[in-house]
Amino acid sequence: MSKDLMPNRYTPGEAEVPQREAELIGRRDSVLGSSYRLQYRRPVHFVRAEGMWLYDPDGQSYLDFYNNVPCVGHCNSEVNAAMAEQANLISANTRYLEPKLVDYAERLTATFPHQLDRVVFTCTGSESNDLALRIARLVSGHEGVLVSSYAYHGTSAATSSVSPNLGDAVKLSPSVRMVRLPGPAGIPESQAAGFFEAEVRAAIHDLNRRGIGVAALLIDSIFSSDGVWVDPRGFIAGGVSAVQEAGGLYISDEVQPGFGRTGEHMWGFERHGVIPDLVTLGKPMGNGFPIGAVVGRRQPMDRFGAAARYSNTFAGNTVGIAAAAAVMTILQRENILHNAVAMSGLIKSGLEALAAKSIGIRAIRNAGLFFGVDIGLPDDKAVRRRSMALNVVNIMRNERVLISTTGENEDSLKIRPPLICKEEHVAQFLKVIESALVQSINVAVRS
Amino acid sequence: MSKDLMPNRYTPGEAEVPQREAELIGRRDSVLGSSYRLQYRRPVHFVRAEGMWLYDPDGQSYLDFYNNVPCVGHCNSEVNAAMAEQANLISANTRYLEPKLVDYAERLTATFPHQLDRVVFTCTGSESNDLALRIARLVSGHEGVLVSSYAYHGTSAATSSVSPNLGDAVKLSPSVRMVRLPGPAGIPESQAAGFFEAEVRAAIHDLNRRGIGVAALLIDSIFSSDGVWVDPRGFIAGGVSAVQEAGGLYISDEVQPGFGRTGEHMWGFERHGVIPDLVTLGKPMGNGFPIGAVVGRRQPMDRFGAAARYSNTFAGNTVGIAAAAAVMTILQRENILHNAVAMSGLIKSGLEALAAKSIGIRAIRNAGLFFGVDIGLPDDKAVRRRSMALNVVNIMRNERVLISTTGENEDSLKIRPPLICKEEHVAQFLKVIESALVQSINVAVRS
Repeated sequence: MSKDLMPNRYTPGEAEVPQREAELIGRRDSVLGSSYRLQYRRPVHFVRAEGMWLYDPDGQSYLDFYNNVPCVGHCNSEVNAAMAEQANLISANTRYLEPKLVDYAERLTATFPHQLDRVVFTCTGSESNDLALRIARLVSGHEGVLVSSYAYHGTSAATSSVSPNLGDAVKLSPSVRMVRLPGPAGIPESQAAGFFEAEVRAAIHDLNRRGIGVAALLIDSIFSSDGVWVDPRGFIAGGVSAVQEAGGLYISDEVQPGFGRTGEHMWGFERHGVIPDLVTLGKPMGNGFPIGAVVGRRQPMDRFGAAARYSNTFAGNTVGIAAAAAVMTILQRENILHNAVAMSGLIKSGLEALAAKSIGIRAIRNAGLFFGVDIGLPDDKAVRRRSMALNVVNIMRNERVLISTTGENEDSLKIRPPLICKEEHVAQFLKVIESALVQSINVAVRS
Repeated sequence: MSKDLMPNRYTPGEAEVPQREAELIGRRDSVLGSSYRLQYRRPVHFVRAEGMWLYDPDGQSYLDFYNNVPCVGHCNSEVNAAMAEQANLISANTRYLEPKLVDYAERLTATFPHQLDRVVFTCTGSESNDLALRIARLVSGHEGVLVSSYAYHGTSAATSSVSPNLGDAVKLSPSVRMVRLPGPAGIPESQAAGFFEAEVRAAIHDLNRRGIGVAALLIDSIFSSDGVWVDPRGFIAGGVSAVQEAGGLYISDEVQPGFGRTGEHMWGFERHGVIPDLVTLGKPMGNGFPIGAVVGRRQPMDRFGAAARYSNTFAGNTVGIAAAAAVMTILQRENILHNAVAMSGLIKSGLEALAAKSIGIRAIRNAGLFFGVDIGLPDDKAVRRRSMALNVVNIMRNERVLISTTGENEDSLKIRPPLICKEEHVAQFLKVIESALVQSINVAVRS
């Protein structure tokens, strides 16, 4: 199936854009590389933000139900104060001793099962996954990587080559194999674990027959870019064991589900009750400051460390550490995970009530505050479902509530509000999505 | 030749470490991945910094002649104020419109030759080189990469596989070829250009015979990790042309020489009068905030952009842009390049005076404020030269002036003070290095 690289985006000439934004887009196109994409049919333009809100140059407020980086709210004053204070003190690097780096590393690993007691810092989620792949390939002596059908794991050469989500024009590695997920394949939950394990075993068999071998199973526990497939709990366990028996590592990509996004747990893998060999962190870790990490078991970390130094100039600098420490303090002190569970319950029951009205919701899946909502009417074909999902997102954008799409057909809504959202935000979101669903049912399929 | 991964480092048991630092090292070792290294035989421990100075917990000041990240000084108040102000306003991402991103992109590209008019932002120098390799491989349709014998280009899977500097245990790509530099090979300057071009042509021939083809020549213009080989000007031109004729791109890695480090020019490649296809930026760009970029010609950028979206969550966020814009303002307003030229002249004449005293300086090379100083007495063997260089660095560290080593034998001193250094700092540096040279001549070779 042919598909756009990123369907929910601005395409020149397709939408009316006000003069001010048209000029800015013209200047962007003259100086930025054309690999940049602007989100939404009509791009958004923000100059200020606070908590759950983004503001355009006219002072109009947009409710953010999409950005999973500012987990404790845009421009969080406590995080920013910690960052500014540390920036004026020292931005020490990891080749020098500085207690704050160690303090935070201890706090971070304390939130993991005891087997995961080593951490290496990076600057981005891509760097985290890239480093985890380096470790897994060195430790296993193999090259093969298993990912889900529509996975996205990063922008580096190594991670983009195991990210089928990026589209046909971005080359996949000869040593990557995609395994199908039970949910999108329509497998009943009772057979999901067996299906996933069989997929993994078949991929390992193929890699071994070609002499490639398996280095890693690299998955995020909620399969966010496949459309958010979270159930049944534990269905990945047999697949994980198969990889480990074959000498590969289980890498849990927590860039999306980590730091309480799933509500019940700090880390998404806990939902499945399976302990990874390596865990990769990114997006919400510093509430926007570029910081990520690989947390792992001692053995693979030591084997990698014996062979290779890993010296990342900016990673683990004390300014990023100060931001990350403030985020951790807020998550724990304010019991943000409890709020995420409560708000996700409100969102879910609200969406279920809309689904009952037969206005275009086919299914609702979530883990905490990460939702995938399948769009379309019962007899709709894929192209119509996708068009309708895109319409819902863009009508909502025009009504100043931000979400986007996900899934292989991009016909699922992707909903990820900052973890601090409250009842009033949920109420506004539900009001606007209902209006958008009703309107989009009546909109013709766009060509 | 077998070599340490990083010779100027702490090795447990080899040096006396005070109780406070020993405890901190113990805690580090229990929680950080063992791929971390601490610099210097006796690790340094800093809790505060300002301008040219780093301070330990006892308030003792260390003169920084090594860190090329804080180019306008540690904890620069203007950069920090810009960052803090923007963090309280919005940390916008590149999928949303925000004028400051475009403003800075225009200011940045204005410092380049007009052919280099497109920019994509990253978070680190490694990400910049990794992205440049993705672009070069996609545009050329080839896989081969040429680097210098002892090059270092980053920590990602792709960049570490073209970084022989990382040591034998880090696998090189089957498609990388190392080309020898004329300087370390002892070639006279009059034959340097021809030697380099012949090396490049031989490597291309080999890549073509194996069906790999050449995607890129990836070099930094001062060959910093090879030991700082800057002359003769223009010697790379024939090699660059050979690569371009074969369909490859010339990528100038400006992570080290960029942003005025070489004094005479904003960009190191200008020294050689050859215009790259892609240029990669990092370290000093945000004075410590994790920000980098790839600047390039329109054609390769457009061909990459037509195939691939490049979406880097943190890169180009307006907080990093604010830091980078403040750095650019200071570099231009304070005429920092002029200062770099003046101070590099003082350092050079001071080192030449020391060389004349026959206390262990064999050669001095520099471009602006990036110096490589070969250490050893005329009849010394490699192991003795290396030992002496390490002794000089560590005696200086004990006298509270920071530098380190570089070069394939790590027997060259690497000296890179922040660009704002003044006469009094140069005087102190020269006094301490003289003392360290005299002492190190009398120290026995360490086993």
